[in-house]
Amino acid sequence: MKAAIITIGDELLIGQVVDTNSVFIGQQLEAIGCKVIEKIAVSDTFHQIIETFEKYQNKVDLVLITGGLGPTKDDITKKTFAHYFNDELVMNTAVLDHVTQLIANYYNRPLNEMNRLQALVPSKCEVLFNDVGTAPGMLMVKEQTVFVSLPGVPYEMKYLITEKLFPYIKKHFQLDAIVHKTVLTVGIGESMLAEKIALWEDSLQLQNIHLAYLPQFGLVRLRLSKTGDSVEEITQEIDEKIKELQQLIPAFFIGVTNTDTLFDEVVQLLKKSGLTLATAESCTGGSIAQKLTSIEGASAYFKGSAVTYATESKIAVLGVQQQTIETYSVVSEEVAKEMAVGAKKIFQTDLAIATTGNAGPLKGDADAEVGTVCIAFAYEDKVESFTYNFGKPRHKVIQAAVEKTWLLLYQYIRLQIKST
Amino acid sequence: MKAAIITIGDELLIGQVVDTNSVFIGQQLEAIGCKVIEKIAVSDTFHQIIETFEKYQNKVDLVLITGGLGPTKDDITKKTFAHYFNDELVMNTAVLDHVTQLIANYYNRPLNEMNRLQALVPSKCEVLFNDVGTAPGMLMVKEQTVFVSLPGVPYEMKYLITEKLFPYIKKHFQLDAIVHKTVLTVGIGESMLAEKIALWEDSLQLQNIHLAYLPQFGLVRLRLSKTGDSVEEITQEIDEKIKELQQLIPAFFIGVTNTDTLFDEVVQLLKKSGLTLATAESCTGGSIAQKLTSIEGASAYFKGSAVTYATESKIAVLGVQQQTIETYSVVSEEVAKEMAVGAKKIFQTDLAIATTGNAGPLKGDADAEVGTVCIAFAYEDKVESFTYNFGKPRHKVIQAAVEKTWLLLYQYIRLQIKST
Repeated sequence: MKAAIITIGDELLIGQVVDTNSVFIGQQLEAIGCKVIEKIAVSDTFHQIIETFEKYQNKVDLVLITGGLGPTKDDITKKTFAHYFNDELVMNTAVLDHVTQLIANYYNRPLNEMNRLQALVPSKCEVLFNDVGTAPGMLMVKEQTVFVSLPGVPYEMKYLITEKLFPYIKKHFQLDAIVHKTVLTVGIGESMLAEKIALWEDSLQLQNIHLAYLPQFGLVRLRLSKTGDSVEEITQEIDEKIKELQQLIPAFFIGVTNTDTLFDEVVQLLKKSGLTLATAESCTGGSIAQKLTSIEGASAYFKGSAVTYATESKIAVLGVQQQTIETYSVVSEEVAKEMAVGAKKIFQTDLAIATTGNAGPLKGDADAEVGTVCIAFAYEDKVESFTYNFGKPRHKVIQAAVEKTWLLLYQYIRLQIKST
Repeated sequence: MKAAIITIGDELLIGQVVDTNSVFIGQQLEAIGCKVIEKIAVSDTFHQIIETFEKYQNKVDLVLITGGLGPTKDDITKKTFAHYFNDELVMNTAVLDHVTQLIANYYNRPLNEMNRLQALVPSKCEVLFNDVGTAPGMLMVKEQTVFVSLPGVPYEMKYLITEKLFPYIKKHFQLDAIVHKTVLTVGIGESMLAEKIALWEDSLQLQNIHLAYLPQFGLVRLRLSKTGDSVEEITQEIDEKIKELQQLIPAFFIGVTNTDTLFDEVVQLLKKSGLTLATAESCTGGSIAQKLTSIEGASAYFKGSAVTYATESKIAVLGVQQQTIETYSVVSEEVAKEMAVGAKKIFQTDLAIATTGNAGPLKGDADAEVGTVCIAFAYEDKVESFTYNFGKPRHKVIQAAVEKTWLLLYQYIRLQIKST
């Protein structure tokens, strides 16, 4: 089964918004063995939308369209959608009642004309009823291709895909079996790794196993994928190749992972380990805490963070010694160590990570060069510290410091779990 | 001048990575008056890349291609690029020297074969020399269209666009004048606003002024755009329409803004006001601090955040009374107030914002329903508090709490500045 994703809206073309919808859609379709062959963003103009529909007509089984369903006039998707199927827009009373209810509950006011328009749908379309928002999903079939139009609001789009569209797909399509397995390697760069496994990689092609390199800070994931008839057969094939890979790079081969990032691995390990964590963040400014708390149930292992951005607050909140700052400067392993120990103490955790650095572009209070980051890691009654230079620009320095934190936690907790 | 953006890589189609490159490119091209008509992501397959090149050949002036230039085998962009121009890849010695140097400096090792391949470029191409990375940019012209291939690494791509591509464009293209102005409105929803300004909006169309609604939490931005010959004339036209709008919605019209988000407005106001800020974050888990510190120079107004995720740490770090938690529960305005006052005290700031809530999906320590968030705002010797329910899912609750924080700060600081 093949699909194309169309996102509609000038805001996507002029970079006003980041398109995360198609990321979710891509993941979901991939997971059920539907191959996304292209993803295109077009402006809110009639002829371009029509032209794009025609481009994919009978070339793919499914065209997924998001965006352009809002109430305001720069949204013409729905009219264009109806036109493409030689259909007209009619008022759907079930949707209208639903919208009326929502507006009443949320805004405590009657429907206005704009809200009413949301209940207009092409007369021949199958409505994907949007229980969580006002704009309905619409499904129409033309010749060999199913066209589905979904609202751009992420929460509503996600709901309609998993709750309404997938049941339809599973009912109407015969899906290929697809298997993905991702191997996590740590401690070797992408090009060195590629060189080491070149022959193995060639052998994959003979078996139509697709290999993708997914490098991240400090690690490279290798994703093996194959579609076919039998999940069992493909799985067996891929598992054999993974065994070969393990023998090829034993020092770097961590194992098969079902997580997408090193961070996800760390979360898994934290849960498994029962260890608790706190952070003391200066240059990372809360990024580590923010990421940890983005995961539900984080309170089981994450207790908190002292984001001591100002130098004086490192003293007031974390108990860093004035003397240490004066002697070594605020960006130093010595200060990082006292921050980590302080955080471990005030949050009463097993582990604490501290960051202090100069993300730039200006030098700020620190003597350290822009890009310098000191990270300290407190555990048991020990504290280790490290100094890095992550260069520039600012966001890259912060990101690298956060990723380095995951790497430190990953390596430490993994050893802990092994040793118990 | 028209452009299309092509991003290459399966990882974009299966949602393995979020495409932020094309966001930057879209913004940059838009800013110089180059209209991006489409943006397409295609997989790493020869025929699809060729087909996409053909789609835009002579239909746009500029095709910008990113991604698929890495050293590993799943990257075939460069070969395809050469083939499309009936050219062959040759070793570029200048690039090779540069790559050799970089590898030596970063990894302190000699070049491997993978690295060498990066210095291969089509013989007829104009090399956009990549001073900040290993993969060079390549520029080729075919008939009416300029094709530019850039590495996918954001930092390198950005460098090549601003430092190498734009000088080329300004030299070779006659650009239309383009003017955008964005009006910030607060306190009215998108559909209500659209209803109020419907006639005005119609009048824009007669003058070929494009209007885009850019709704965000708590506000709607209206972007007016027009391209033409004279910046002066267009500016005058748009300014007149904005005057009309102000008279139409005086209560909601804040003014013309050159920032993209309410957060940007808050940062501007904080700088202007000279006020200092600290936060105490529970349910937002550091998101507020992370966002504030993502901006360079934040230390001038942001002093820090106590991310007291665990209930005990609210007591230990912020001095919240055990009694208050027992009486009102951890998700309560009373606790939020004590958190805000505590943060204002330990970070010694003019303002402090505190969040405590239940982002879900589970109820955790709190009695409060999932989605409940209490926000307290401490200033001078006062503290105000508010309770909201932001529904679900988790990330939406956190996001809404953060946005509400910007709205509170925005409204307060604006009054402060006006009153002085």
